[in-house]
Amino acid sequence: MTDLEALDRADPLAGFRDLFELPEGVIYLDGNSLGPLPKATKLRLAEVVQREWGRDLIRSWETNGWMKLPFRVGEKIGRVIGAEPDRTVAGDSTSVNLFKALAAALTLRPERRIILSERGNFPTDLYMADGLCRLLARGHTVLAVEPEAIDAALDERVAVLLLTHIDFRSGRMHDMVRLTRAAHAVGAVTVWDLSHSAGAVPLDVAGAGADFAVGCGYKFLNGGPGSPGFLYVAARHRDVAMPLTGWMGHDDPFAFAPDYVPAAGIGRALVGTPAVMGLAALEVGVDLVLSADMQAVRTKSLQMTELFIGAATAAGFRVVTPLDPTRRGSQVCVAHSRAASIMRGLIARGVIGDFRPPDVLRFGITPLTLRFEEIGVAVRAMTAEAEQPPRLAG
Amino acid sequence: MTDLEALDRADPLAGFRDLFELPEGVIYLDGNSLGPLPKATKLRLAEVVQREWGRDLIRSWETNGWMKLPFRVGEKIGRVIGAEPDRTVAGDSTSVNLFKALAAALTLRPERRIILSERGNFPTDLYMADGLCRLLARGHTVLAVEPEAIDAALDERVAVLLLTHIDFRSGRMHDMVRLTRAAHAVGAVTVWDLSHSAGAVPLDVAGAGADFAVGCGYKFLNGGPGSPGFLYVAARHRDVAMPLTGWMGHDDPFAFAPDYVPAAGIGRALVGTPAVMGLAALEVGVDLVLSADMQAVRTKSLQMTELFIGAATAAGFRVVTPLDPTRRGSQVCVAHSRAASIMRGLIARGVIGDFRPPDVLRFGITPLTLRFEEIGVAVRAMTAEAEQPPRLAG
Repeated sequence: MTDLEALDRADPLAGFRDLFELPEGVIYLDGNSLGPLPKATKLRLAEVVQREWGRDLIRSWETNGWMKLPFRVGEKIGRVIGAEPDRTVAGDSTSVNLFKALAAALTLRPERRIILSERGNFPTDLYMADGLCRLLARGHTVLAVEPEAIDAALDERVAVLLLTHIDFRSGRMHDMVRLTRAAHAVGAVTVWDLSHSAGAVPLDVAGAGADFAVGCGYKFLNGGPGSPGFLYVAARHRDVAMPLTGWMGHDDPFAFAPDYVPAAGIGRALVGTPAVMGLAALEVGVDLVLSADMQAVRTKSLQMTELFIGAATAAGFRVVTPLDPTRRGSQVCVAHSRAASIMRGLIARGVIGDFRPPDVLRFGITPLTLRFEEIGVAVRAMTAEAEQPPRLAG
Repeated sequence: MTDLEALDRADPLAGFRDLFELPEGVIYLDGNSLGPLPKATKLRLAEVVQREWGRDLIRSWETNGWMKLPFRVGEKIGRVIGAEPDRTVAGDSTSVNLFKALAAALTLRPERRIILSERGNFPTDLYMADGLCRLLARGHTVLAVEPEAIDAALDERVAVLLLTHIDFRSGRMHDMVRLTRAAHAVGAVTVWDLSHSAGAVPLDVAGAGADFAVGCGYKFLNGGPGSPGFLYVAARHRDVAMPLTGWMGHDDPFAFAPDYVPAAGIGRALVGTPAVMGLAALEVGVDLVLSADMQAVRTKSLQMTELFIGAATAAGFRVVTPLDPTRRGSQVCVAHSRAASIMRGLIARGVIGDFRPPDVLRFGITPLTLRFEEIGVAVRAMTAEAEQPPRLAG
């Protein structure tokens, strides 16, 4: 067995763990679903509530920078995902941002009618795309294929290639550079969902030539439950029309002008009043991610997923996550006929992952908070649970 | 002069003031823009952050009721606005909710092409409606008329009558019952924006026969900066299709089914992951409103606006807010050629209202936190400022 203690001693990211609240007796392998609480978030939220809202009240929109929050937090997320400057905003849910990105992308290819995606995409992506097609009622359809059929389905009829970079169920990572190039080769526009990527793996949306990207704030960015999401629009699409034309996307919101004039910059991607508390919490989480060396994060993540995969294979689980590390995000998914029961057993032991129907156990790897020694405990518990008689649902 | 001290002594709502944080030396007449901080919100947010997020982590979606928050808070707001049970949800911004309501309303009148509104409507309402028309690209238009021309413009071509119940600039209140009836008489569907109404005046959307209603959480509901908004859909429209078909609106979100099946109830109006912290804060504010007698709130509000209007008139301001109390919301707006300068002077004296270009001074009346004696101080300060030489912008 690998010397996990030695790995922990040599871990350049070991110091980050103390910056998070982590409950006693828990090995938390669900940071890909809800990232843990940064200690600094408590202080920051107390400050926003007590001083900025309670004491400074309405003037905080200016004096405490509330109006700039969607831009400031967006800009920081932009650095996490490798965006050009001033092309990312934070706000709204991932689903709503996806709607904006898709509708905007379709306007760039008005003569085309297909949104190409994959069958296993996170459901909200497919649902939102379907809903948009129905709303437009101009013959648009979502073509959802198996991942290996994406290239064959990319042709001149495709307006938008909509993909989630790291698959929520399997942890498989798409090659963003190659697929973006393939989409562009047939004149299609790309929309990338980075919900399981931002803060988990090094990203370079500008270098990849991505057209639009969205993602969520409550997973690897540690923004808290239901944290605002983000939206990136490539600089070359700065003039694209946005479908949700709210006052915060106006060139001069407080002129209260009768006609909508979109902001010149990425501000046009904003809609309603910024969710100040959610954005303030998200900023703390993003700051933590930015203070880490993303290559060190990736190295530790792959070490951990390798360890996990090796042990799971030895224990008789079928590994769903790609064995090729270049195709793997920061999670491990394994299948087992008694997956639901095994996850109940793990949770009873304080090992928190999640179960995805019908038979997948999913473990998120968050290198900022996990120790190698915990991975050892988790895989031993998983092995033991697989050897147990089934546990009934509680 | 009225005996303001006697009014304060007799005020049945006087006890509410202590439930809010109010900064020293400030008379806050901007609760119609950002409601003040309820003391209980600090404790509730600390609990959500420390215990629910920090300690219970992912399981809080079930054990701490996070999944039910949009429904629970929505239901409480439903009681504030007089909705039927189970027809209101909280979440997203007001602008996004308006988009959902308008798009859904248009599907009920597929052969009609006009969204009728008024020119002075809050800009985001007109912007969102315009954006929807452009997105649909089927010849829909927004017809924005003067308020006195609404009735004449209501005809069989109108799909939706989109009105803000209480005008943000003037404080004028529409007759929701009469206008809803007039809309229905020509077969139009109504969308009411209650942003300046919910928590400010008694409401009965079900009794009025309103079809859809939206509103914001950070004004009279005291939900905090950028708090989630709400959406009401009348029970008779329970089967209406929603345009933003996110996973939280699915009949069974955690089945991760490939096809979208809308929730049978109001849940179909949800989109992305609920903003837990924003919703938790909003719930505290709504609970406070629900604990007050809304008729007493209205009585005190009208007493205060009457006092304000009388004093402003005497001091030479032109009163923009209707003099007829049945047409007045919970704010007073007065016009003055030196409005911007006067508001700067008032703010310097600790009297916080706001300036709306070109010449309007706006004062929100929040009966849960204001004392009559403060109204006296505010109008004396306003009178004094009107007699001062102009103050330059800082």
